[in-house]
Amino acid sequence: MLKTFFVTLTLLLFSWQLSATDSLLVTKQAFEIAEFRTQNGQAISPVRVGWEAYGTLNADKSNVILITHFFSGTSHAAGKYQPDDAIAGYWDAIIGPGKAIDTNKFYVISVDTLVNANVYDPNVITTGPATINPATGKPWGLRFPVVTIADFVEVQRQLLDSLGIDKLHAVIGASMGSFQAIEWAVRYPDRVQRLIPVIGSAYLDAWAAVRLERWAYPIKQDPAWRNGDYYDHGQPLQGLKTAVAYITQDALYPTAFNARFGSPTADKAPHNDILAPFTAWQQLLAQAEQRARLQDANHILYLVRASQLFRAGMGDNWQEALSRVKAKTLFLPASGDQLLLPAMSQQSAAAMPESQVSYAEIPGDWGHLDGVVNISAVADKIAAFLQ
Amino acid sequence: MLKTFFVTLTLLLFSWQLSATDSLLVTKQAFEIAEFRTQNGQAISPVRVGWEAYGTLNADKSNVILITHFFSGTSHAAGKYQPDDAIAGYWDAIIGPGKAIDTNKFYVISVDTLVNANVYDPNVITTGPATINPATGKPWGLRFPVVTIADFVEVQRQLLDSLGIDKLHAVIGASMGSFQAIEWAVRYPDRVQRLIPVIGSAYLDAWAAVRLERWAYPIKQDPAWRNGDYYDHGQPLQGLKTAVAYITQDALYPTAFNARFGSPTADKAPHNDILAPFTAWQQLLAQAEQRARLQDANHILYLVRASQLFRAGMGDNWQEALSRVKAKTLFLPASGDQLLLPAMSQQSAAAMPESQVSYAEIPGDWGHLDGVVNISAVADKIAAFLQ
Repeated sequence: MLKTFFVTLTLLLFSWQLSATDSLLVTKQAFEIAEFRTQNGQAISPVRVGWEAYGTLNADKSNVILITHFFSGTSHAAGKYQPDDAIAGYWDAIIGPGKAIDTNKFYVISVDTLVNANVYDPNVITTGPATINPATGKPWGLRFPVVTIADFVEVQRQLLDSLGIDKLHAVIGASMGSFQAIEWAVRYPDRVQRLIPVIGSAYLDAWAAVRLERWAYPIKQDPAWRNGDYYDHGQPLQGLKTAVAYITQDALYPTAFNARFGSPTADKAPHNDILAPFTAWQQLLAQAEQRARLQDANHILYLVRASQLFRAGMGDNWQEALSRVKAKTLFLPASGDQLLLPAMSQQSAAAMPESQVSYAEIPGDWGHLDGVVNISAVADKIAAFLQ
Repeated sequence: MLKTFFVTLTLLLFSWQLSATDSLLVTKQAFEIAEFRTQNGQAISPVRVGWEAYGTLNADKSNVILITHFFSGTSHAAGKYQPDDAIAGYWDAIIGPGKAIDTNKFYVISVDTLVNANVYDPNVITTGPATINPATGKPWGLRFPVVTIADFVEVQRQLLDSLGIDKLHAVIGASMGSFQAIEWAVRYPDRVQRLIPVIGSAYLDAWAAVRLERWAYPIKQDPAWRNGDYYDHGQPLQGLKTAVAYITQDALYPTAFNARFGSPTADKAPHNDILAPFTAWQQLLAQAEQRARLQDANHILYLVRASQLFRAGMGDNWQEALSRVKAKTLFLPASGDQLLLPAMSQQSAAAMPESQVSYAEIPGDWGHLDGVVNISAVADKIAAFLQ
């Protein structure tokens, strides 16, 4: 009895200490492919991407979970690089020892995509338009090939091959990460045992493709963009920060947005001066500028394009492609998502055998972003699904 | 018995003929105010606006229904100017003899707003930045005062005063028209007996104000805009048509959008050329350009601003302002609306006494635009409410 008490107390103290130190410490690693061939037949020499992992690979390499990241994200899904990092990886609430994606059981791995947005984040390693092309000694710019979600998957596949990993216990990704997760399950049905598309979709329709085009517009309209050849002159920051502001708003339901940005009722100047901006817009733009300073404008254009082109299997019939998936699948849209609507998860699920698919919605005030900031609301569902 | 049969037959033929000739013929009229004083204390000399009416004003002028128009709309709410007009006014499905807003009973009146978008539509009469200011002999441009929804209401009020109309059986408006309708009921609680805000809201929050700012952005970024002084050089058409495209998309739910614009799956060029546009975007832009040719870019900026500034009563507390409304009120949001969400109608309704308010949603695949194209789905509710 007394012994049980002390064990319990020790466990409680341990878990408290774990949360106080913000869990795992992680290290960024690099993976290089000498020559990568894209889906549209172009060569990129070399491709270098960053990756990180949490937990321990077991002897038969059967405990691997791949996390694929969202549009503005990186491979930093959990943990901290340094104990005093201000924030942990974006899904730290569900990845770690004893958490829903339990690193005591699973070896969790995450990879920076090609054309990752955050080129100037020192913890990101990616290859894209901002990368020096060794063949010319200059940044690729728009000479970089159009890359797709399937290309992102192929880079990850080559990394896993190099580690001798050929089975995935699960692939889990949010938003653009859901595209990669689904594409994994379509291209490699025998390698993917479980699939969780979070705030995701198996296709982008005309409506979504046009909405993403609107993210690209301010960049292309900025004279400082110079048709993509701005690397000797500095970034098209006005266009880039505007794009980042649009992306931020489109990921937020009004409730969360209005809680963070000033009410137009309090603004007096816009009633007297047609050009006076609203406080909310200025605040959003200032926040976007901070994030834009780590990003590259051309990379945003390439991420927009990769997302726009996505449909499962990358062919003419995404429903038919989805029917090839063997993985047990759990769709987790966010109820308030106005970017990738729950209806898109529902239509994706409808293309798969009913017995193979489950579905639950993430509640919250954040909309699309509930798939990141409120993921703990479905932690139990994820944990149960991974058993 | 036989007589009843012939009466019925005659009525049937009459109603058939009515629909075959597309109902009412209407005439645009003009109303002028020598000097109009705006909410922010500026003078506009003169203000001229267009208006039209359907039905007959009764002897005690007690049968008047005012229809206030939406952002991209005009006072052409019903009927045709010529029998062979390709289309009738936007709410022709519910305004006319025997329709939900029955012109056999009601005198229905509608007025072009200040800064109406469709300056170059020969059937629109409005005053705004594109108008020649007699004091200078040049277009007002950005020297035109910022005007508000309350200013739109005051112009309408002066027109009604000039006609000797001091009671309104109802005020009904969709979207930006709902703002005007609500402002009428707040400013003149004793004059407005019934209020129907369709796809509307009693306030614009930070989220909505910023979304509307995004409509203004392409215009202001177009070098041809020349800070609003483009009248000697031609319109900033690139910016204007992009703005109109954004407005169109934001008013459409994906189901209706995808039914009208090409699927990205069918597009091959965007996979090989980062700058190649998607067909859906080109189609949307081409459609927008047709509409943009009737519009003025500065007028769009002023309509954006008037909408952004709106909250019932135009003061610091829209809920308190709404509590002054005496009109019986029927909120009619569209279920799929992603621009002025049903939640905004609900929050608006919540600020009024429960006994005074009713609420129903317009179903459909069009989203915000269901308030215009699918208004017949709630025709019975409108008819019953107007009894």
